[in-house]
Amino acid sequence: MTRTLIRNLASKANQTVTVRGWLHKKRLLGGLNFITLRDRSGLAQSLIEDKNELEKLRGLQIGSVVALTGVVSADDRAPGGIELHNVAVEVEVPVTDEPPIEIDKSISHKSENLDTLFDNRVIGLRNSQEQNVFKIQAGLTKALREYFYRHDFVEIHTPKLLAEATEGGAEVFRLEYFDKTATLAQSPQFYKQIMVGAYERVFEIAPVYRAEPSATTRHMTEYTSVDGELGFIDLDDLKSFLSGLLHYVTKSIWSDCETELKSWNATKPLLPKEIPTVAMSEIHTKYSQATGENTVGEKDLRPDEERWVCEYAKKNLASESVFVSEWPASEMKFYHQANEADPTKADRVDLLFRGVEIATVSMREYRYNMVLKQLKKFVGSDSKDHPGFKPLLTSMKYGMPPHGGFGLGLERLTQKLIGLANVKEATLFPRDINRLTP
Amino acid sequence: MTRTLIRNLASKANQTVTVRGWLHKKRLLGGLNFITLRDRSGLAQSLIEDKNELEKLRGLQIGSVVALTGVVSADDRAPGGIELHNVAVEVEVPVTDEPPIEIDKSISHKSENLDTLFDNRVIGLRNSQEQNVFKIQAGLTKALREYFYRHDFVEIHTPKLLAEATEGGAEVFRLEYFDKTATLAQSPQFYKQIMVGAYERVFEIAPVYRAEPSATTRHMTEYTSVDGELGFIDLDDLKSFLSGLLHYVTKSIWSDCETELKSWNATKPLLPKEIPTVAMSEIHTKYSQATGENTVGEKDLRPDEERWVCEYAKKNLASESVFVSEWPASEMKFYHQANEADPTKADRVDLLFRGVEIATVSMREYRYNMVLKQLKKFVGSDSKDHPGFKPLLTSMKYGMPPHGGFGLGLERLTQKLIGLANVKEATLFPRDINRLTP
Repeated sequence: MTRTLIRNLASKANQTVTVRGWLHKKRLLGGLNFITLRDRSGLAQSLIEDKNELEKLRGLQIGSVVALTGVVSADDRAPGGIELHNVAVEVEVPVTDEPPIEIDKSISHKSENLDTLFDNRVIGLRNSQEQNVFKIQAGLTKALREYFYRHDFVEIHTPKLLAEATEGGAEVFRLEYFDKTATLAQSPQFYKQIMVGAYERVFEIAPVYRAEPSATTRHMTEYTSVDGELGFIDLDDLKSFLSGLLHYVTKSIWSDCETELKSWNATKPLLPKEIPTVAMSEIHTKYSQATGENTVGEKDLRPDEERWVCEYAKKNLASESVFVSEWPASEMKFYHQANEADPTKADRVDLLFRGVEIATVSMREYRYNMVLKQLKKFVGSDSKDHPGFKPLLTSMKYGMPPHGGFGLGLERLTQKLIGLANVKEATLFPRDINRLTP
Repeated sequence: MTRTLIRNLASKANQTVTVRGWLHKKRLLGGLNFITLRDRSGLAQSLIEDKNELEKLRGLQIGSVVALTGVVSADDRAPGGIELHNVAVEVEVPVTDEPPIEIDKSISHKSENLDTLFDNRVIGLRNSQEQNVFKIQAGLTKALREYFYRHDFVEIHTPKLLAEATEGGAEVFRLEYFDKTATLAQSPQFYKQIMVGAYERVFEIAPVYRAEPSATTRHMTEYTSVDGELGFIDLDDLKSFLSGLLHYVTKSIWSDCETELKSWNATKPLLPKEIPTVAMSEIHTKYSQATGENTVGEKDLRPDEERWVCEYAKKNLASESVFVSEWPASEMKFYHQANEADPTKADRVDLLFRGVEIATVSMREYRYNMVLKQLKKFVGSDSKDHPGFKPLLTSMKYGMPPHGGFGLGLERLTQKLIGLANVKEATLFPRDINRLTP
């Protein structure tokens, strides 16, 4: 018999149907015997009345693949108000070992026990709540792309195998590449800038690699970077673009993944039309006053300040997201642009959301002579002909417009939208200094 | 003045507008002086009448970033029927060096001169025809995802950093991973199978890595793999799914990217509703008869046979694509499934399109005991506890349904849809044994 998906049962009341899926739960109470079947569309309860059918389930563990043929019956006591009755059981794949972890709980894991979660990831992902994390992430990715399409972006695929380390040598993975050494891309930075010279607006959503030597709640060695780069714009345009992006994706997933978000008690973020901007020095001053710590004059934000300013913005600016501006020019990358009116500051903002930086946003130096100067100053005088820098410099030598962009961590955004404690909880198979499996 | 995109000029006849972009072509004929401007939406011709304005263009090379303010004028002789008149020129970024290659040709490159193409890729991509390749690829990628969404797939992001080599040790890249060795994923094979246990239907479009030691027209060391995996299906379902996929993406790009395809003289492929299947032995026999070569009994197809059978199918089966079936079971990977009725054959087909294999398609062995047997037979008896295989085996130990899937090369499909000679022409920044830059 043709398979019916569980999500379609409600429309087939009193009909005999076949569902196929995984045995998700067994409650053999003697008198009343229930099993729950899982397929890609949901869970369905079945009442097993016939003793011979019941016998087929003996010794079968959760995860067994079964086909159930029965009559769709409305029953208010059943989850979803629907139940299968008069069920015939066909065991397609018997499982005889008890799974290493339970998968039928509504709360799938605790943030303090992540090693257990990841060690058992393969089976743990069969839990509905756990699945919801990555359904939300898939919905988020779809919404991000829609937003890019609506703004006239072209999707690109740039190489992750690079000839030489360019940005920061320490956190770069190196590999044998035939008789050479290659490195893994830490970001598509130069390539997306180069591509502005062709398409003006490009985006890429792809893995990037950082040899991050510390295991934190915020860092991984491999993550999915959402990169956008735009030509003929200024920093205010970038801020508006990102404000719009956060709005768009929030609206999309709260529409498409409402059930999934509810299962995690996720709350829709408070976001004004334009995300507010707070200068770094103001954060330092206010944070120091509020906490007694003295951060005034520091050139970066401490993680605790990131959390603090997000709380501050939520209370005082009605926003759970905030741009941090006025980064010192001394901390720039060579490809960043200094502010024209105040060259001691970079034309850069960081986008914070719910206590953590989710994106760095900056204008790029696009004038060939200026970028050569900055390269010399920030990297070294012999780097002009370095094969890692050459392509970017070539694009500027032959004409690049004012441009800028951002890199946004997909997993961090997923994490913060759902309200998870650790970025790894929003990663299917996370990688860090201690973890390369499963 | 607000910027007007070139694509919107036609709707602003007789208005004064400002366009911004790159100087794409200069024809200073003394009497009549024309320049062509390029922005992300197209090319526009401008007539420079005023001597002072003309003076600003002196010595400016192609690629210079300029803003032109002028009156939109209908002129049948202008490309697109529109021209700017009474133009005031503002030079935003002057370029003084002549670009290393010409970018205003309608034929952007010749397939026999690819090193020049790739050495100058950064600037070459400013050519309209060259840009069209990757606009088509972006359209194709969008269409592929739409097809997956319509068929109830969940998008996943699986790790490319792996603990150990699993499939074929020779073509694997190895890297230092802190105090360990990691490898780069050759495909998301095991992860997508594992995820069938959660979502039944998953897809991923992401880079994969092969330490391919030969430079051919078909291979690269990094490419974009379009991976799909489906549970509760059989080989016929997979074939129908892929027939539908080719139809859907062809229809989509011939609707969304018609102009871009025309610039390459691309012809819409001939595809019947269901792509025909030809058995390998039949191909060997017919090819041997047709060519005088003897391939009867061979366990694979030669590249020349792939080309031949595509020509054969076009002529005799009205299809430019064909499934090759009846692969010998002796050549299986351990995770492939043998045919139940004839265990000397694998439940596998290869999808050929216009002379080349674009996807391998197979059912997977899903029964725990059988996959253990095959692992022992094809890989080795001690591989059961290997950290590279363990996760896949775990998923089967705790219940996996019949499932199968495919891996399709995005660049190969792009190449063949457009009609390019080399897969690298359909890659922004190709990587092979000889090329890690730009």
